Amino acid sequence: MVEITESEIMDALRRVNDPEIHRSIVDLKMVRDLKIQDGKVIFTLALTIPECPLRDQLAQDARLAVAALPGVKEVEVILGAMSAEERQSVLQPKPQTPAMVTNNQVKQVIAVMSGKGGVGKSMVTGLLAAALIRAGHRVGILDADVTGPSIPRLFGVHGPLIVGKAGIEPIQSRLGIKLVSINLALEKEDQAVIWRGPMISNAIQQFWKDVGWGQLEELLVDLPPGTSDAALTVMQNLPISGILMITTPQSLATMVVNKTVFMAHTLKAPIIGIIENMAGFFAEDTGHQYDIFGPGHSEEVARAANAPVLTHLPLRPELTKMCDDGMIELADVPEMSAVVTALETVSLKASHV
Amino acid sequence: MVEITESEIMDALRRVNDPEIHRSIVDLKMVRDLKIQDGKVIFTLALTIPECPLRDQLAQDARLAVAALPGVKEVEVILGAMSAEERQSVLQPKPQTPAMVTNNQVKQVIAVMSGKGGVGKSMVTGLLAAALIRAGHRVGILDADVTGPSIPRLFGVHGPLIVGKAGIEPIQSRLGIKLVSINLALEKEDQAVIWRGPMISNAIQQFWKDVGWGQLEELLVDLPPGTSDAALTVMQNLPISGILMITTPQSLATMVVNKTVFMAHTLKAPIIGIIENMAGFFAEDTGHQYDIFGPGHSEEVARAANAPVLTHLPLRPELTKMCDDGMIELADVPEMSAVVTALETVSLKASHV
Repeated sequence: MVEITESEIMDALRRVNDPEIHRSIVDLKMVRDLKIQDGKVIFTLALTIPECPLRDQLAQDARLAVAALPGVKEVEVILGAMSAEERQSVLQPKPQTPAMVTNNQVKQVIAVMSGKGGVGKSMVTGLLAAALIRAGHRVGILDADVTGPSIPRLFGVHGPLIVGKAGIEPIQSRLGIKLVSINLALEKEDQAVIWRGPMISNAIQQFWKDVGWGQLEELLVDLPPGTSDAALTVMQNLPISGILMITTPQSLATMVVNKTVFMAHTLKAPIIGIIENMAGFFAEDTGHQYDIFGPGHSEEVARAANAPVLTHLPLRPELTKMCDDGMIELADVPEMSAVVTALETVSLKASHV
Repeated sequence: MVEITESEIMDALRRVNDPEIHRSIVDLKMVRDLKIQDGKVIFTLALTIPECPLRDQLAQDARLAVAALPGVKEVEVILGAMSAEERQSVLQPKPQTPAMVTNNQVKQVIAVMSGKGGVGKSMVTGLLAAALIRAGHRVGILDADVTGPSIPRLFGVHGPLIVGKAGIEPIQSRLGIKLVSINLALEKEDQAVIWRGPMISNAIQQFWKDVGWGQLEELLVDLPPGTSDAALTVMQNLPISGILMITTPQSLATMVVNKTVFMAHTLKAPIIGIIENMAGFFAEDTGHQYDIFGPGHSEEVARAANAPVLTHLPLRPELTKMCDDGMIELADVPEMSAVVTALETVSLKASHV
């Protein structure tokens, strides 16, 4: 009778990949408590996420891989789950930052995130870039919202992007902000990019490594909603210095924003601060103030994020109009100065390390 | 000297997959104008999307596959593009609708989409479900926003989802609306689901086929923003009867919503109508009306979509509060009746075909 060994089993399991993370379940340390008894093999599969919808398929793959070995009569797979710490170490960002084209020197890469859609990530990104360039910084915006890009429209700029000696050349705004967005590469701006995750991820990485960004104090990365491919790519493949988290007063928004906070903590990405947008509406004609989206929960997000609330931006119809007209950088909103200061502080601290 | 044949080249190219669509470039009819001359092979690769960021990689893969054949001295790949019609036939929905659990009978599957985030897709979905159940329909909501699920919060319902004899049992709202959402499967509602596309796609399909929806007149599918995995899965794998397109007055929103219109047309999914949300704010204390997000562009979306504007929903702070308090179904907004009528008309037409 053939006697099966532990190392043969592990070798067989090493060929089974986690369907999400695309790495071997052995390398991911998911295989545990392996026991062999009279040809019966028992082991535990510690899942990264217990409610993983592909878990049955994964268990089946692992079972079949072991069952195929000579000497194995029976296989029992017990489904378990990793602890939060173990999961963290598995999902930790790997040093995969792609090399940029030469001559690029970006001091800080700042991700503007929310998790929730329509909270004004792109508007805040645009206003912040304008405030930074007014403060003498050299600034770029990487529009990582590949399926809903807003940046070109806000700045009233058009493509096409041209490839020069130093890589893809960003389009410059009136004030000199360097902009790259998929919409600058499309024939018509309302054309859809119907791409699955890997293509989205690839486009974002290309916007980072193949663009001639040159010398910048800040590159702002405007992210789409959600905690899927785009956010994962930015957090894992770009050298993010910190995250600005955008929220609105709605408690529903707070819940979804907190998911992104959870993600940032899981991937160990530092959160610089919270910006609350749509914080009330001031009717200039009557002087009345209306909490259209409720009284605000930014302090709650700040507690979860362990980061300060940097500023509150009220609803301003004239600002909406400037955005729609492609004139965002002409808006000089006083609330942004606190954010500029926060970024300068982070940069100073980093240069003293 | 070995003489290379056309069929050998096609066989080699058959093993090269489009990185996005995951099908052979030969099956996708991308290889054209193949010429062989003294060991030099020339052919055109007709891309589905000319600005595809992976095109160089794809061309390289094709070049290497052919270059490896004995007798080939040189390979020239010319990059071309498919016509809109050809692209459509390639991207056409395939009949892959997964079989549902037994005893399910859903008359109409309605996708609530926008492309843009934060325009109120979930709120409209909730208000519409409440209006439909008041009109005597049996209604369910499939929350396809896996990374930013809002439905449970709007209805004030909690998990866990239980698996019964007829599959996963939806949670019922106060009025009896059947609800399924990833947030009903999480331990804590602000926990993030950090999944790449295939997992998102899988979860949505599971919510369709493994749930005991029972007998329903309408299943509303609440979609996340974007035109990537979630939207593709719903449009390609669920038997969608029609799409309700949500927009807001901002012209920026219009542009992004039009991308989803473009996607719906590409995938031949019928658009039932447009709903404009956040259409102005009425200050009850002074009677003044404010176009906070601008004057509205819903007619422009309607023209692009070739579908009517069904209704306009103004901003109502008391509605925001009901949403935040989990009481959405108690709101009875008169604007929804036009949408109920539209769905009943679509259903009647379908039953007469």
